[in-house]
Amino acid sequence: MTGPLAPREDWIIERCPMAATLDIVSTRSAFLILREAFYGATRFEQFVQRTQISEPVAAARLRELTDAGLLDREPYRDPGQRTRSEYHLTDKGADLAPTLIALMDWGDRWGIDGGARIELRHSYCGAPVHAELRCTDGHEVQAGEIELGLKRRA
Amino acid sequence: MTGPLAPREDWIIERCPMAATLDIVSTRSAFLILREAFYGATRFEQFVQRTQISEPVAAARLRELTDAGLLDREPYRDPGQRTRSEYHLTDKGADLAPTLIALMDWGDRWGIDGGARIELRHSYCGAPVHAELRCTDGHEVQAGEIELGLKRRA
Repeated sequence: MTGPLAPREDWIIERCPMAATLDIVSTRSAFLILREAFYGATRFEQFVQRTQISEPVAAARLRELTDAGLLDREPYRDPGQRTRSEYHLTDKGADLAPTLIALMDWGDRWGIDGGARIELRHSYCGAPVHAELRCTDGHEVQAGEIELGLKRRA
Repeated sequence: MTGPLAPREDWIIERCPMAATLDIVSTRSAFLILREAFYGATRFEQFVQRTQISEPVAAARLRELTDAGLLDREPYRDPGQRTRSEYHLTDKGADLAPTLIALMDWGDRWGIDGGARIELRHSYCGAPVHAELRCTDGHEVQAGEIELGLKRRA
């Protein structure tokens, strides 16, 4: 990226939305729980089995992600069993799809993994789906074509 | 997301590129270091000052990100000072831009932060830049329009 770096020494991003987001999803296990929620997991044992993280860690992450409004918890009850909780992505949680897919794309491009992966396809046309940078004028944007500036919000 | 979940019980993603990527950048401090590298920080004291993480943690993250090939380390020497290291994003590190920008966009959309933020603009046209999901046919894709399948690679 290029941009107005001259004043860069003078300020620190104290309330960066990326940093704030990372307060919620900064752990590997949080991303893996979200990945499985995208892939359709809803029950505690599914999250544990598919992420291969420990039960206490999975329980902590599910609680944190629920508290942060990324997952909704609903009771369910199988015949003859006690009531348990099911987890579903909220709109806020589902909106992390571009982040998760950008991470997958990167791992794929840089050969981080050599095995099977999920392929994501557009349900309307069947073409593969990727995360990419676009400007609001519709141009594809490369990392080297970005300029930085400060924005103030109300 | 929707998709062929019927066989979902039968497999676990053992070598998911997202999980592998998270082995490299799963900590809040790694993301913050990368953010500052995108914003033009190159020197140890810049990373420490701007991320407000401790010196030992910053040193550990810079070493890990360098070992993983996301940053290049180069010696520099200011007059009268000892030789120090400067860090620059490699192509592999710069290619995480869509992930970082997707995180920023999410925090911005969900009001995670109310203060100043960096605004990213396309250097060619000046329009704001965002991370978004597209299929290779060029359609904008919403999270609910994604189908899942398994892909095998050689």
